[in-house]
Amino acid sequence: MEKLFREDLKYFKPYKVGKENYKIKLDANESFIKYPKEIEKEILNAVQNTMFNRYPDEMSRDLRKLYGEYIGADEDNIIVGNGSDELIQIITNTFLDKGDKAAMVMPDFSMYDIYTEIARGSMVKIPLDDEFNIDIQNLIDTVNKEKCKILFLSNPNNPIGRIIKREDIIKIIENCNSIVVIDEAYMEFYGDSIIDKCNCYKNLIVLRTCSKALGAAAIRLGFLIANIELVEEILKVKPPFNVNALTQNVGSVLLKDKDFIIKNVNKIIEEREYLYKELRKIKEFKVYKSYANFILIETKNSDKINDFLIKKGIKLRSFKEGRLKNFLRITVGTREENNIVLSKIRNF
Amino acid sequence: MEKLFREDLKYFKPYKVGKENYKIKLDANESFIKYPKEIEKEILNAVQNTMFNRYPDEMSRDLRKLYGEYIGADEDNIIVGNGSDELIQIITNTFLDKGDKAAMVMPDFSMYDIYTEIARGSMVKIPLDDEFNIDIQNLIDTVNKEKCKILFLSNPNNPIGRIIKREDIIKIIENCNSIVVIDEAYMEFYGDSIIDKCNCYKNLIVLRTCSKALGAAAIRLGFLIANIELVEEILKVKPPFNVNALTQNVGSVLLKDKDFIIKNVNKIIEEREYLYKELRKIKEFKVYKSYANFILIETKNSDKINDFLIKKGIKLRSFKEGRLKNFLRITVGTREENNIVLSKIRNF
Repeated sequence: MEKLFREDLKYFKPYKVGKENYKIKLDANESFIKYPKEIEKEILNAVQNTMFNRYPDEMSRDLRKLYGEYIGADEDNIIVGNGSDELIQIITNTFLDKGDKAAMVMPDFSMYDIYTEIARGSMVKIPLDDEFNIDIQNLIDTVNKEKCKILFLSNPNNPIGRIIKREDIIKIIENCNSIVVIDEAYMEFYGDSIIDKCNCYKNLIVLRTCSKALGAAAIRLGFLIANIELVEEILKVKPPFNVNALTQNVGSVLLKDKDFIIKNVNKIIEEREYLYKELRKIKEFKVYKSYANFILIETKNSDKINDFLIKKGIKLRSFKEGRLKNFLRITVGTREENNIVLSKIRNF
Repeated sequence: MEKLFREDLKYFKPYKVGKENYKIKLDANESFIKYPKEIEKEILNAVQNTMFNRYPDEMSRDLRKLYGEYIGADEDNIIVGNGSDELIQIITNTFLDKGDKAAMVMPDFSMYDIYTEIARGSMVKIPLDDEFNIDIQNLIDTVNKEKCKILFLSNPNNPIGRIIKREDIIKIIENCNSIVVIDEAYMEFYGDSIIDKCNCYKNLIVLRTCSKALGAAAIRLGFLIANIELVEEILKVKPPFNVNALTQNVGSVLLKDKDFIIKNVNKIIEEREYLYKELRKIKEFKVYKSYANFILIETKNSDKINDFLIKKGIKLRSFKEGRLKNFLRITVGTREENNIVLSKIRNF
């Protein structure tokens, strides 16, 4: 049977996640916000009004309109997907033929690499320097020299929390001969989105998600924003009916209350700054300034601290090898969760 | 910018669906069953218990267990997807390298072809004979001669409604050197599934869906059943967290009441037989015996009848070109819907 398998995926590992239960789960950059009763009620209404026997709107029309209003973009510039994940895969399928190259910095979101390989392309990995800074000119030169067809960049970066300044983003878009995908999954926690430039640049694609600032990781809802020519090309590859009706309807409820989203983002930022301040007091830690909803820490004891916390029912994201060996990433939790983690770490 | 697009998708058209509203919608093989109050209530409970801020179970564990009980298979043999659609795409991505061939009969479900092309493969199309019969030996010979890596076959067939007998399915599986995907989207309306053979054959994959017999097209829930070796290989390519929590939770509710499903299937079959009997009385029609929840009709007036019905707010599936020119496909509706359509057609 193996002769029917793709040779290039022979040593590919499935992305597996543990199913353990933790008392405090700060490993997946989820939001700690719970929806209030009114929103819960509206969600239930939306579900009750769902025609279960009918296929969903294959173009997610209502949702695109509402998301357009939320981010200040036209609905025609928007494509909806099952999380940014599906949209990353749709992008690699749209632009990569076998052997074509894509580029990313290291470290960045690992799914760029995975979906590039599944799309039969290969990933050019451009390392950040010792302080996790991007050498913008080197990035541009590498993308062009290697004839990469796509450059993926998260801004703010996951897992570091760093941002790329607007002027640098624009320099990258203007000088790379590739499609430039700016993944703004964590943008609400920083605020300087490049979406306003989508119609100015032929090669710009922006990705957004409802999994972070909107606190809706459960519904798997992501958005792609780009100029019409790119949207038309990408739609060739988008599966029809990809986003189910429940996700569309619940997403529509969440997007109607912009004030609620802003209030939650501010709450999370406040906790992030508290956590940052407290973590900086711990001498053995190098703590990275973050513009997202998580904080990256470097410490020689990272593995031991991680094992110790797991025993206490607390799950952080630990990195076992490569450039991020000795690093831990903590999602910003509630004040109570943050204090418990801080006190456990202090007493380690 | 066009130089960054895939050359082979240049003339590829996005799959677009109209957004018109019809009074009677019998074009998409949806179920006419509405859920009773108790199930609606359980659905709302399931939604209320959803942790919106958390990523879904990436392996859909509860759902796989329940679906396994429904079809009589082990959960380890099951993968869950956003409709069969996503699973077809995952299959083409698992097995096809650029230029590799897949095979299908014509006519059959068009997405096999689309996802094969997106996966950079090419589709070998094997025409059925004038009466839509499959020449089993010719099918096997073609698949092997052309070195196809995958054979897709829907059983019952969409859009004809024909079935392939168990002994022929087994002959195909045993003699094709390819992966054989039996798409059983409409199997509940016929009843002789090949799922029991999944662990007997190394090359067999079965697809199922909740969009037809379970009346849940809105939630986009499909299942893949295969032996463990194939499942492990396919999991390399399955996006993590592909199925959102709402679909998982609502799907779990629907699968708990097997009697309800059987009752609905029987109701739909009863209506199918009624519709078939009545359609056969119309002299200008050639009506094909169906084992699914739709009926295929051949008539020289198909375009005119279709236009006439659209004006009356009734949507059937009409085929404009190729082998199915002059054909209409009617999804089985409620008795009332069926009678309205019948009376309009009779008075055409």
